[in-house]
Amino acid sequence: MHRLIAELYPLCRSLTGPGVRATLDRIALEVPLERSSYDSGTALFDWTVPDEWTIRDAWIAPEGSSGDPSERLVDFARSTLHVVGYSTPVDTVLSLDELRPHLHTLPDRPELVPYRTSYYTPTWGFCLADSLARQLPDQRYRVVIDSELRPGRLEWGEVVVAGESDATVVFSTHICHPSLCNDNLSGIAVLVELARVVASQPRRMSYRFLFVPGTIGSLAWLHRHRQRLDVVTHGLVVTGLGDSSAFTYKQSRRGNAAIDRMMSVLLRDQGAGDVRAWSPYGYDERQFCSPGFDLPFGRLTRGVHGEYPEYHTSADDLDFVSEHQLQGALDLLEQLVEVIEANGDVTSLSPYGEPQLGRRGLYSATGGAIDTRSVEMASLWVLDGAGRGDLVAVAERSGLPLAAVLHAAARLREAGLIEVGP
Amino acid sequence: MHRLIAELYPLCRSLTGPGVRATLDRIALEVPLERSSYDSGTALFDWTVPDEWTIRDAWIAPEGSSGDPSERLVDFARSTLHVVGYSTPVDTVLSLDELRPHLHTLPDRPELVPYRTSYYTPTWGFCLADSLARQLPDQRYRVVIDSELRPGRLEWGEVVVAGESDATVVFSTHICHPSLCNDNLSGIAVLVELARVVASQPRRMSYRFLFVPGTIGSLAWLHRHRQRLDVVTHGLVVTGLGDSSAFTYKQSRRGNAAIDRMMSVLLRDQGAGDVRAWSPYGYDERQFCSPGFDLPFGRLTRGVHGEYPEYHTSADDLDFVSEHQLQGALDLLEQLVEVIEANGDVTSLSPYGEPQLGRRGLYSATGGAIDTRSVEMASLWVLDGAGRGDLVAVAERSGLPLAAVLHAAARLREAGLIEVGP
Amino acid sequence: MHRLIAELYPLCRSLTGPGVRATLDRIALEVPLERSSYDSGTALFDWTVPDEWTIRDAWIAPEGSSGDPSERLVDFARSTLHVVGYSTPVDTVLSLDELRPHLHTLPDRPELVPYRTSYYTPTWGFCLADSLARQLPDQRYRVVIDSELRPGRLEWGEVVVAGESDATVVFSTHICHPSLCNDNLSGIAVLVELARVVASQPRRMSYRFLFVPGTIGSLAWLHRHRQRLDVVTHGLVVTGLGDSSAFTYKQSRRGNAAIDRMMSVLLRDQGAGDVRAWSPYGYDERQFCSPGFDLPFGRLTRGVHGEYPEYHTSADDLDFVSEHQLQGALDLLEQLVEVIEANGDVTSLSPYGEPQLGRRGLYSATGGAIDTRSVEMASLWVLDGAGRGDLVAVAERSGLPLAAVLHAAARLREAGLIEVGP
Repeated sequence: MHRLIAELYPLCRSLTGPGVRATLDRIALEVPLERSSYDSGTALFDWTVPDEWTIRDAWIAPEGSSGDPSERLVDFARSTLHVVGYSTPVDTVLSLDELRPHLHTLPDRPELVPYRTSYYTPTWGFCLADSLARQLPDQRYRVVIDSELRPGRLEWGEVVVAGESDATVVFSTHICHPSLCNDNLSGIAVLVELARVVASQPRRMSYRFLFVPGTIGSLAWLHRHRQRLDVVTHGLVVTGLGDSSAFTYKQSRRGNAAIDRMMSVLLRDQGAGDVRAWSPYGYDERQFCSPGFDLPFGRLTRGVHGEYPEYHTSADDLDFVSEHQLQGALDLLEQLVEVIEANGDVTSLSPYGEPQLGRRGLYSATGGAIDTRSVEMASLWVLDGAGRGDLVAVAERSGLPLAAVLHAAARLREAGLIEVGP
Repeated sequence: MHRLIAELYPLCRSLTGPGVRATLDRIALEVPLERSSYDSGTALFDWTVPDEWTIRDAWIAPEGSSGDPSERLVDFARSTLHVVGYSTPVDTVLSLDELRPHLHTLPDRPELVPYRTSYYTPTWGFCLADSLARQLPDQRYRVVIDSELRPGRLEWGEVVVAGESDATVVFSTHICHPSLCNDNLSGIAVLVELARVVASQPRRMSYRFLFVPGTIGSLAWLHRHRQRLDVVTHGLVVTGLGDSSAFTYKQSRRGNAAIDRMMSVLLRDQGAGDVRAWSPYGYDERQFCSPGFDLPFGRLTRGVHGEYPEYHTSADDLDFVSEHQLQGALDLLEQLVEVIEANGDVTSLSPYGEPQLGRRGLYSATGGAIDTRSVEMASLWVLDGAGRGDLVAVAERSGLPLAAVLHAAARLREAGLIEVGP
Repeated sequence: MHRLIAELYPLCRSLTGPGVRATLDRIALEVPLERSSYDSGTALFDWTVPDEWTIRDAWIAPEGSSGDPSERLVDFARSTLHVVGYSTPVDTVLSLDELRPHLHTLPDRPELVPYRTSYYTPTWGFCLADSLARQLPDQRYRVVIDSELRPGRLEWGEVVVAGESDATVVFSTHICHPSLCNDNLSGIAVLVELARVVASQPRRMSYRFLFVPGTIGSLAWLHRHRQRLDVVTHGLVVTGLGDSSAFTYKQSRRGNAAIDRMMSVLLRDQGAGDVRAWSPYGYDERQFCSPGFDLPFGRLTRGVHGEYPEYHTSADDLDFVSEHQLQGALDLLEQLVEVIEANGDVTSLSPYGEPQLGRRGLYSATGGAIDTRSVEMASLWVLDGAGRGDLVAVAERSGLPLAAVLHAAARLREAGLIEVGP
């Protein structure tokens, strides 16, 4: 996963344009990606698809410079972060005072270059280290942004894995951030691998893995699928999965959707990680969970946007994410898929009195001793769960690991003692 | 407000009689007071309107005294508290032992005169400082209470402010306590001002401000209005608003009425004050919330009855209440009125995806930075609240100040993005 | 109660056979016991009634011994615990290595003899002190178990107390444990006394006191009564009531059944004791609360199975239980019966405003003072409870002792102010 991140890192992604198109091309080499698009100007609910943005070069140099790299004080070629996303073209000479309003820095983290965009309000700007901005001599500067904004297309991709059922699990990640590794090349890399794993065997549920530009991309997907969103039974926005933090799960707007309960129990079983209540601020869960859709989408990250100093800065680089942490996220998501596949409401086929587990080899023969073997306890709890909801509820109620509950349920099903509903 | 309290302080109020009539006359000089009454003997639910009580004089002096003020050991003229409310007339000579059962003192607060009444069981008595009672020589005493109990009227007043809607907010305070400032001249003074403020501009809701004798007065009002109580959407009993304590809000019997949720959030936003669960002991909320009515009446006080040593004693005097604290109570109640006027269920007019706040000037143009500006956050939370209850629920859910939520809601309504229902 | 325990202690009880039959005979001398049975081989839901087990003797001695008591290393005659319950007959000579798998000890409590059974898997074994087992010389041993397993009957008994109503309260205790005092001769002794007390006066509810072998006995009772279980409104499994611990109440599977709420409040009022959530592991509540029945059965114990070192060992002897603790349990259960008899939903006959308690002698005449007398407060809370559930809910809501609430309710009923429903 880290190798894929390293390959994608130099591309200047944005909502639209060559960078995001190249990113989708690269993803398509790994997994069967279905590509979709909407033309600029298309109305998507309250929004409109913007013009496509092409950025070729951007720099600041002392007045009179021809733009030779050695003369550039700020140079897009060194980092895609240096130019404000969707900057309009400019080629002019300005005094330092005139230039200042177009310079974005982080005074509290003076060596870091921030990430800024202005998608829906036409303007231009540069991002740079505050330490550099402070040292700029009071002189005139040549300022060049070689960009284009013209009608084009908003593009996205998705991997579709059809299962036995139309009921669909959606994983979504945004692909519009330029050279930022945790937010969000990590999300892209993990979902590519997860899609591969999910597609590798027959599945009960159907799955969709979305690679969409932030906000407008998720709105585009919702718009395209607006007549068939009722098949979506579970959804998860993933991003920021490569940093060194423990997991943070953010609940859906509903707060008690199946995905919320599953993720809470999985993190509880890990003995680490944090569950937070829904808030309407964040990533694309804002769109999936907006009142008109109110889909059961949670969000999984490690560090949370705005809470770690590297967030949306040049410090979110290749060193900030590790294969180990990406793998941990992939493992957790694979567990989630197993839970979604196995979960269902428990019905007992032998509800009057406890079934005699002993004669089925599901219980130890010698009574009187204190039996704390977890599989036996899990069996009792699963049987007890009949008529009381799903297997996740059994894990919640019992405090037993979800893995033990699923294992016991499988054995009880084989023994003909329970059914697990859809 | 303190000036009004000082004017009313000397009057000997009771359930009925000249003192309470004079009090209503004085209130009527400030606000348009509608006067009502029931005759003595009228059955009000399980109660009966008592005879009207007139008290002219009451004193204890050594046997043989003509009642010259200089000879009086206990003298009603010095404090209305000295005579037990509704005392029957008496003019007799008693030994100290015969007198003792008629003397009420506070041994744990020996310098304070207690406040006692006996409305529904005919008897007579005096209240005095325990230090004085202990020093009375063992001799015979002339005891005079110049009172009258005869058929008359139970009177109350109310200020009615008609709004666009019949839905009615009721504020109620009791007016039957004699020379006691916090309990309850403070309630009278604050409600007079609140009624003036509410009447000063057009209102969505209708309002009623009740000035009623305790228990029998609220029962009288309930009886008079018993066929139209279904218009009462919010109710609040106020009393004890002038002492130095923080606020205490007591929930209605329902526990989750709109008034309960509003007051909880307002006190939360103040960062001080206490919310207590319903109990059937207290002031007139006992009647408004009795099972047959079960109206949504909470209660606002500062100090709580029985929990401060000055309660129902001569120490609840003009020094015990301050204009500053009265003003704080008035401010809070004005905020409450603003909340009641503005509150309602949120409906989104653009529920599919987040509305694009940026192009409406409701969101900052430059993305990527961490935006914590509370009005933007409040806007997101209000939009998120569509279909999930009222604006108070938005404040509860978000933790944002109710004032910020109301402000954001007003802006979103102007922008045509939401409706706030009745 | 301790005397009855001492009489029953030597008997070798099991699921079936002479020991349990003798135990039922002894109980029948105290209370009118209705006896019931099912034949071996009868299918009871998922279970089958096992053969009847008779045990006459069991011992281990050095090879060549004739079985003279002085030669026996382990001897059933010294303790019924020495033989594994339902052991098949054996008379053989074995090496120590061959014998070892049949020896059960407690290495962490080396002086105690454990209690073990193997009801449904044919095998045999001995239980002994680990200190003894470790000292056995490496030689050959004569091993004798003089037992019989042949078709017979599963027997149980119950005391039936018919009340005005068919609604039935069931108390159940298991009778299958051999020489173990707390688990469960204490349960037998306390229920015998409780049955006597309940039968001593006319009752509103009907009562059944079950004395049943564990698991298969409760299943037998459920099977026999399977068409009329809907009359069971309250159920309680009792066991382990004689040790020195405070009470532990385990909630029914429903978690909020009336019995759960009653026991929680009674323990709260005692100021001691623990309430635990339902789990599907434990005593016969496993059967009564199995999903198909889901009866409102809680469980009362003092110490909890598996949590005290004497549990299921020879240390659970006559010294481990005391008359004082048994009496405390009986007292609590008698209180429970009083609550069940008196409880019901409150309806007010005077719901509009507070009834005037004063003129009925239910409230002090002199107002103004702080009245904290608990019976007056309890009266207010009971009146307040009209339309809000039962008297237990009044005690929960008010924090007042259930006894005070029942007392106040009785007075208000006499005064014609409330009705308490069934």
